[in-house]
Amino acid sequence: MEQGGKKGRLRAPLPVQLLKKVLFCGICHADLHVIKNEWHNAMHEIVGVVTDIGPSVTKFKAGDTVGVGYYVDSCRSCDSCSNGYESYCPKLVPTSNGVDSSDGSITKGGFSDVLVVIQDYVVRVPESLSPDGAAPLLCAGITVFSPMVRFGLNVPGKHLGVVGLGGLGHMAVKFGKAFGMKVTVISTSPGKREEALDRLGADAFLVSRDPEQMKVFTMDGIFDTVSAEHPVAPLLELLKPMGQMVVLGVPVKPLEVPAFSLVAGGKRMAGSPGGGIGECQAMLDFAGEHGITADVEVVGMDYVNTAIQRLERNDVRYRFVVDIAGSNLGTVA
Amino acid sequence: MEQGGKKGRLRAPLPVQLLKKVLFCGICHADLHVIKNEWHNAMHEIVGVVTDIGPSVTKFKAGDTVGVGYYVDSCRSCDSCSNGYESYCPKLVPTSNGVDSSDGSITKGGFSDVLVVIQDYVVRVPESLSPDGAAPLLCAGITVFSPMVRFGLNVPGKHLGVVGLGGLGHMAVKFGKAFGMKVTVISTSPGKREEALDRLGADAFLVSRDPEQMKVFTMDGIFDTVSAEHPVAPLLELLKPMGQMVVLGVPVKPLEVPAFSLVAGGKRMAGSPGGGIGECQAMLDFAGEHGITADVEVVGMDYVNTAIQRLERNDVRYRFVVDIAGSNLGTVA
Repeated sequence: MEQGGKKGRLRAPLPVQLLKKVLFCGICHADLHVIKNEWHNAMHEIVGVVTDIGPSVTKFKAGDTVGVGYYVDSCRSCDSCSNGYESYCPKLVPTSNGVDSSDGSITKGGFSDVLVVIQDYVVRVPESLSPDGAAPLLCAGITVFSPMVRFGLNVPGKHLGVVGLGGLGHMAVKFGKAFGMKVTVISTSPGKREEALDRLGADAFLVSRDPEQMKVFTMDGIFDTVSAEHPVAPLLELLKPMGQMVVLGVPVKPLEVPAFSLVAGGKRMAGSPGGGIGECQAMLDFAGEHGITADVEVVGMDYVNTAIQRLERNDVRYRFVVDIAGSNLGTVA
Repeated sequence: MEQGGKKGRLRAPLPVQLLKKVLFCGICHADLHVIKNEWHNAMHEIVGVVTDIGPSVTKFKAGDTVGVGYYVDSCRSCDSCSNGYESYCPKLVPTSNGVDSSDGSITKGGFSDVLVVIQDYVVRVPESLSPDGAAPLLCAGITVFSPMVRFGLNVPGKHLGVVGLGGLGHMAVKFGKAFGMKVTVISTSPGKREEALDRLGADAFLVSRDPEQMKVFTMDGIFDTVSAEHPVAPLLELLKPMGQMVVLGVPVKPLEVPAFSLVAGGKRMAGSPGGGIGECQAMLDFAGEHGITADVEVVGMDYVNTAIQRLERNDVRYRFVVDIAGSNLGTVA
């Protein structure tokens, strides 16, 4: 068992905890916000292998491939926790920059070599999935999967629009197709048409800056993953009556939402910040059945700063994953 | 049977139609938009009494007190019609300024003395309700009731915020209380506190311009009925995680919606334009059981222009209803 560079944090697992050797950790756009001190969490899509378990751990055993998302503990008693939506718990302990409830230490996220985590906040990664491609499922994957299921946008034959083809967007296309939906990608970049249709398997492609193309009014749902400022009114127009737009990107300026468009069409806009532990396990199981992983570029720790700069200019298809344990160099059994 | 001033329109009912003598017709804020040529419907919350029925009419008989809302026909085959949400049908025939599907005439709304309507687009008004107070239920009532039920904001003990105390707002308070909810009225006018708490029975009152008061973060739902420009960000903050804001007012300028507030809290914003025929009947039945009517000021036809001017400056508690048949003057048996 490697101790890594963060010996101060490492400890034997308590009864219901397990020790997990980190294999891969994705880098998410949210991590940019952390680096800029805008948010409070980073390095939170982590896949590893269980190396040691506390005496009361029942759900996992050494050797299991497991995942940890953006939180490692919550209060377990509030409405959100009781209903399986732990991500809304006001006492959520983020996977990094949080305060560990067992010893008061600061959680350090997926750039640790090892993590000690309470079993209830750990999910099983299906063996059929590559651990590097599975890592971003713990954030990008669950962020699109949870609202798809919660809002009924997972029904075969329904029409899903996906705005923006990045980390979240490409996962939305994959899950949408796996659910049997018609998926239309909407992008400012005509150059992404081939990628969307041929490689990711979307059914149609619209250039959002071309008003002539934006006359499809048949969408049941739209996943807007764009974090840059952009008009949402034309997107709402694409929705059928009672259609739903899910906002996943977070532009700095407020979205400009025409009330008439919401009211006349009985439309809804919803935000979503990830999902609960149960939802996350369901997502991974579904991904395992359908062979869904993120498209990743695996990099070493020495490349992280470059990766973050490239991420800032959206120069990645579609997610960087850091090879924490050097797995891809053949150093792990 | 009175023929009224619109003889060109009047005809005997076709097999499934019924003839209805109009008793009361509410005046809604939407009617202002029509008068200003902004929208395309007016005079659409109508209660009357059945005077004659076509040979195939089975649902009603002469003498029944019935209501008609803002549409009198739809296609009956689209997704919306099939699912009981006729109000979203693209071929909806509005109660006024629409094209009557049976003879191509222009529908004239509730300011006719009589209406001929297909029975499927007519609802029964419970006998326990006064017909004048029931008229606005056909618009203001269903507009708040439908999203309450559809979005699960009708559960005892849940906390409902109602923004703006007008035609829609006062109905939201009444239905919210009848559903057993905790209802908080949010208004720019401190002077409405007594009215909200003592007369309408709300549980709490917040002045929206006082940031100190706007620190209640426990609402499951908010009904925003305000048509004037106003900030919605502080309203979203009042919602619990996964809370829902229902937009019913239609300010001209787009709403400014902070994406972060939607995303971090998993919150939703929905619009709603009335409801389906089945929903409308359910609303009236519920209103009948709970003795809910709108608070109305009944006026004669000669007062309509004044009423519309007063409506424009929100000088009404809470809805004008026009006494089309002179019922309140004792002229109707």
